[in-house]
Amino acid sequence: VDAIQEKNAPVCVGLDPLIERFPPAVLQDVGLSLGPDGALQAGADPIGCADALRAFGREVIRVVAPHVPAVKINIAFFERYHVEGVRAYLDLVRCAREAGLLVIGDIKRADIGHSSTQYARAHLLDNPGAEVAAPDAITVNPYFGFDTIRPFIDIARQEGRGLFVLVQTSNESAAEVQNLALPDGLTLGEHVAGLVQSWAGADGLVGRSGYSCVGAVVSPRDLASTERIRTLMPQCVFLVPGFGAQGRTAQEVATCFRSDGTGAIVNASRSVIYAHNIEPYGERFASDWPRAVEAACRDFVTAVRDVAQR
Amino acid sequence: VDAIQEKNAPVCVGLDPLIERFPPAVLQDVGLSLGPDGALQAGADPIGCADALRAFGREVIRVVAPHVPAVKINIAFFERYHVEGVRAYLDLVRCAREAGLLVIGDIKRADIGHSSTQYARAHLLDNPGAEVAAPDAITVNPYFGFDTIRPFIDIARQEGRGLFVLVQTSNESAAEVQNLALPDGLTLGEHVAGLVQSWAGADGLVGRSGYSCVGAVVSPRDLASTERIRTLMPQCVFLVPGFGAQGRTAQEVATCFRSDGTGAIVNASRSVIYAHNIEPYGERFASDWPRAVEAACRDFVTAVRDVAQR
Repeated sequence: VDAIQEKNAPVCVGLDPLIERFPPAVLQDVGLSLGPDGALQAGADPIGCADALRAFGREVIRVVAPHVPAVKINIAFFERYHVEGVRAYLDLVRCAREAGLLVIGDIKRADIGHSSTQYARAHLLDNPGAEVAAPDAITVNPYFGFDTIRPFIDIARQEGRGLFVLVQTSNESAAEVQNLALPDGLTLGEHVAGLVQSWAGADGLVGRSGYSCVGAVVSPRDLASTERIRTLMPQCVFLVPGFGAQGRTAQEVATCFRSDGTGAIVNASRSVIYAHNIEPYGERFASDWPRAVEAACRDFVTAVRDVAQR
Repeated sequence: VDAIQEKNAPVCVGLDPLIERFPPAVLQDVGLSLGPDGALQAGADPIGCADALRAFGREVIRVVAPHVPAVKINIAFFERYHVEGVRAYLDLVRCAREAGLLVIGDIKRADIGHSSTQYARAHLLDNPGAEVAAPDAITVNPYFGFDTIRPFIDIARQEGRGLFVLVQTSNESAAEVQNLALPDGLTLGEHVAGLVQSWAGADGLVGRSGYSCVGAVVSPRDLASTERIRTLMPQCVFLVPGFGAQGRTAQEVATCFRSDGTGAIVNASRSVIYAHNIEPYGERFASDWPRAVEAACRDFVTAVRDVAQR
């Protein structure tokens, strides 16, 4: 909450880096090339791929750091390159923290309790011996219920970190599960929202901002439902995907904020990090892709700032 | 199904390795020691930890390979050691495949579509350039609905691999979400079972065994519900956790099989891999922990074989 206020920017930039969409200059620097079909060459060296992820990510972090309080780094795009990819993920978490940013590790993990404990240790604990600086917060999946979330909460509390529990996701098919109607008139997503608030409001988890270290991933679906979810989770910060490439409107996103303009952090990934391919940025900064990213990031911040202050 | 028949053993052994529970001999071999509280020394070298995971896992694989068709390796216990841990996970996947075992990568991943595609590529594709041999099947989470599962199915079909979708998990709190009653009288878990069958039964996914490459994780809760779920998913192989340490009874597990004794593969983890600490195995094989594991594994196979053939 402080970091958002300091930058006057309730947003984070999502690093979901697909090498196939990188600016040619990044690929050249690390000696990678795409085939005529635009795909990465089969058998591309994983070390080269990890280098590309690292080089691209570092530039994005450098240019967005003055404008946003946080980045969200999705580990799926790194895990694809196995050991080398995971190393690049960890390097970028550290790089972003060193740039003064808060880092959300978008890992969407969950397992039964004693396995969740291992994930929590992996992703919420610094480990100097392994040169690992953990993210400030991570995303987790609620399908197993509370006892799989508790290990994450325990370590988050101990370390001054946080988590965002998936409540309502931004994909089309989410409705198949999350929109199921329960007999009390709530959808499953809304019911999960109530559960998450009950976890978030526990003793010792709510800070002086009035918000808990347990937040929620909430993609606005329809206005009435988003309003219900906002009411159901008064102490949760919402991590809001779907602005930009995924096409949520300003009004839909506005509903995720409380009336005082706090309570949400809006993410954009592709619409910022691939700005070199998006007009007007691509043409305006044709020879300097990081400036295209920076311009798109500034416009994104302005757009969300307007929305939050409605 | 063939592999189960060949070994006459509808079981897999779960590798959820916690270094703190390893036989002292394994720790000595790699130069690790536990503190007086039984915890790993703070700042323990991650390479040493990964070596311990690898040494322990290799021995378990060696002794269980003659008796079981498959092992399930839970990546959470490896991710805890970051890059070195992931390397050990991949080494053990390869080791188990080389031992002639099928491997279930217990990763419980899911994300929105284009991110799930990255997870699917990471965990269902061999990658010779990175010396990665992928597991034969993986576990995935259904909370996002079909479009996050489709990328896994697409790559599984192309590669002759499979997946197990979480339907009913074995932890206490699972009921908070999975047992929610829907207006049609089904629980959420049972509704998800119906969804998974609709995905599993699609053209091209069902093999000559009559089973699909899309299976389900089903921990039996009560008999009536397990019977409903078995009926709702006629073409799905059930991966059944909870036998052994988690305390499901033989009759509860029996309900996961179809009447011909096929359709389920039962997992035991802690009750087999830590047999050196479980009587009568610990005492009988005090100086030879792998023999304790082998004896516990044989007893586990016999117990499940009896159950399946009821």
